[in-house]
Amino acid sequence: MYVFLNNGFVEQEHATLHISDLAIQRGYGVFDFFRLRKGVLLYVEDHLQRLMRSANIMHLQSPYSINQMHQILRELVTKNDVANAGIRIILTGGYSPDAYEPTTPNFLIVQSPLQIDDNTEPKKVNIMTHEFVRDLPEAKTINYSMGIWLLNKIKEQNAHDVLYHQNGVVSEFPRSNFFIVTQKNEIITPAANALKGITRQRVLELRNEGFDVKEGKITLQDIAQAKEAFLTSSTKRIQAVVQIDGKKIGDGQTGEITRALLAHLIMKEKQYGTAITA
Amino acid sequence: MYVFLNNGFVEQEHATLHISDLAIQRGYGVFDFFRLRKGVLLYVEDHLQRLMRSANIMHLQSPYSINQMHQILRELVTKNDVANAGIRIILTGGYSPDAYEPTTPNFLIVQSPLQIDDNTEPKKVNIMTHEFVRDLPEAKTINYSMGIWLLNKIKEQNAHDVLYHQNGVVSEFPRSNFFIVTQKNEIITPAANALKGITRQRVLELRNEGFDVKEGKITLQDIAQAKEAFLTSSTKRIQAVVQIDGKKIGDGQTGEITRALLAHLIMKEKQYGTAITA
Repeated sequence: MYVFLNNGFVEQEHATLHISDLAIQRGYGVFDFFRLRKGVLLYVEDHLQRLMRSANIMHLQSPYSINQMHQILRELVTKNDVANAGIRIILTGGYSPDAYEPTTPNFLIVQSPLQIDDNTEPKKVNIMTHEFVRDLPEAKTINYSMGIWLLNKIKEQNAHDVLYHQNGVVSEFPRSNFFIVTQKNEIITPAANALKGITRQRVLELRNEGFDVKEGKITLQDIAQAKEAFLTSSTKRIQAVVQIDGKKIGDGQTGEITRALLAHLIMKEKQYGTAITA
Repeated sequence: MYVFLNNGFVEQEHATLHISDLAIQRGYGVFDFFRLRKGVLLYVEDHLQRLMRSANIMHLQSPYSINQMHQILRELVTKNDVANAGIRIILTGGYSPDAYEPTTPNFLIVQSPLQIDDNTEPKKVNIMTHEFVRDLPEAKTINYSMGIWLLNKIKEQNAHDVLYHQNGVVSEFPRSNFFIVTQKNEIITPAANALKGITRQRVLELRNEGFDVKEGKITLQDIAQAKEAFLTSSTKRIQAVVQIDGKKIGDGQTGEITRALLAHLIMKEKQYGTAITA
């Protein structure tokens, strides 16, 4: 597989950064991640726009415009010739002379094989909670210190993931967004302190197809009273959250609305865009 | 200059990490930084112990023991033959197959020329404040997203640095510790939510030489009423903090206790240890 690194394609095994890069020195950078599905870069425009927003928030100047990135992505995908993959674009703080001030970013695009089946039955997951808010929740930075630090606790609790909250107001998972379905069939996702996920956005758009979806405030108490709960991400699409901190959510089974939303998402993916490669 | 990288010495310009390293992918790693002063690795034992504590907190397994690191440092310093330098040891999350779970760390030691004069007159600095607490304040992680993000605001305010607080209770600077001197000549540094700096520790030890130094709680109100304030770090030693958010601290001049402490610190440095190289 080839990687695009700064200004050209290199074989993955030779893709390196000098240790003066600000990601290595100070964990400073932004990224985005999306799927190549049967040769289609899924929702690529949304992801590239979000990458640019993240870079802007973090005062990083992308060396390429969105149009140029499209072009590089097409070349990369054609060169690698793998129809189903995950694609990660990283923009670091660059080779900083004083190991602190950001400079011209290093820019890389990595493609890794990733196949996701179109099974419309959502996976069921148990989650735990942890009090935390990401530093700059509007930006998709590379800083996952807390999420990774919590991996051991997640295993100890036999959970699949950890939901952040502050004073009982929930926000997001380290890598996914959160939704509940209330007893009135309102579908709500946290408005504040959460990354604006692209799959989250796709679910919000289903308000045009008869679902009562909105952004709002969700407390741990709201979850205790919810009928259903689920998480969204580009790689997980929708997973049913059936247990939180050892307590069942609703009846502890995958809800009907969760199941219906996943079916809609998969249908949308199938309808989206045109394959780069034949 | 040579860099020690994992298991050997490489020339600095060739010191690279593969892009799958978890520092690049997820900003995950720990480090420590100390000075080589006239061939003496200043307070190296404290720094290596803190590095091990940081690694332990972040679930990273150092490939070398403290004794082995001493040996590598001696070799590196001898090879590079520069008497005054900054030395940075970084331990990253390693080449993670899933770009999320830490694995065997990459270990690197970088030496950069750094000369600090022994002028006993403290530099004067203006600071601003920002509401923030580091994720895991006991660990010296590579995560400086917030500190670096704030660089533009610091410039806008004509400040030199930014002091973090939460609900008015102050903790630390991104890279330095904070102290005040009260009207009763008590010297206080925040006990909570601050990295345990080695220079901070040296100042605390001056309680054995007649200074009334202690850890405690400091609020923004306490600073408004303080006689003096200063910051400490391994590269800055002691700097007088004479202004905060545009308001003078005390009479806005370097205080006598701040000045006396710096003189003591420099004397301690001169007395410390034995040079590795003749």
